[in-house]
Amino acid sequence: MQRKTLLNSECPVALSLEHVGEWWSLLIMRDALQGLRRFDEFSRSLAIAPNMLTRRLNALVEAGLLEKRAYSTRPLRHEYVPTERGHDLIGVIFALIAWGNKHFAESEESVRVIEKATGRTVQPMMVDVESRQVVPWEACEVVAGPGASGEMRDRIAGIKTRQQ
Amino acid sequence: MQRKTLLNSECPVALSLEHVGEWWSLLIMRDALQGLRRFDEFSRSLAIAPNMLTRRLNALVEAGLLEKRAYSTRPLRHEYVPTERGHDLIGVIFALIAWGNKHFAESEESVRVIEKATGRTVQPMMVDVESRQVVPWEACEVVAGPGASGEMRDRIAGIKTRQQ
Repeated sequence: MQRKTLLNSECPVALSLEHVGEWWSLLIMRDALQGLRRFDEFSRSLAIAPNMLTRRLNALVEAGLLEKRAYSTRPLRHEYVPTERGHDLIGVIFALIAWGNKHFAESEESVRVIEKATGRTVQPMMVDVESRQVVPWEACEVVAGPGASGEMRDRIAGIKTRQQ
Repeated sequence: MQRKTLLNSECPVALSLEHVGEWWSLLIMRDALQGLRRFDEFSRSLAIAPNMLTRRLNALVEAGLLEKRAYSTRPLRHEYVPTERGHDLIGVIFALIAWGNKHFAESEESVRVIEKATGRTVQPMMVDVESRQVVPWEACEVVAGPGASGEMRDRIAGIKTRQQ
């Protein structure tokens, strides 16, 4: 398949997808973030061909989302543990759960996210980092950051012009 | 490529990925949610082969994320407008921006998300839907919902046992 690499892109969405932009990788990370660690556990959970699972696990180790650790030396056996970068992907998983629940759940939700201590339902929302106030999605916008190239600034400016 | 369909799955992450679990689709939706509408605009933005772009746009229309509307009849020309389901994907895009900015930005962020009215920086966080209080990720957990099958309940119970 023709596939242009976006690693030279500066867009954080493109950069993220370059590392996990593939169906199986996100499902493997979903399982890893739920506590699965061993090849056989992923294999059972995902019903994925072993050669494909090996390839995806290696790619996730290379991308710095999983760390491969020996848990037995005789025979040599490894487990796959989320790194900090892998742990932080939970924000994307929570966003996918919310979107999937809203648009694709059969009738009632089969999983939901709660605050452990209270059992209360939680949802991903945009929050003002200083005041901790919730800001509705439609009140948010994407703007050029301090590290934006001229090209990125033009792109965002072009989009703003369109929207007026 | 061998690919097992997960449409019969009840997991909202798997269900979501079945609809957008592909690199190009998420980049097309990123652009559509920023205001791009026409084939040529997507083509210029993404540098994607025309046959591939056509295929991905059609798949997004079929999945109910984009609506295809004629904007000219002579010659017949269409534009692609996000549906409500497509609009709600902004939560996933915001999560990808936050993760990409934290882990893959070169030095400074090239894009950031702000509250339009105030210019303040906003971030995706988990929020208690009733009290509107922010709940840290590590204080959240995924539990079976009212629509969970026995299999899903066993799966989540098995994971909880592991974690103790």
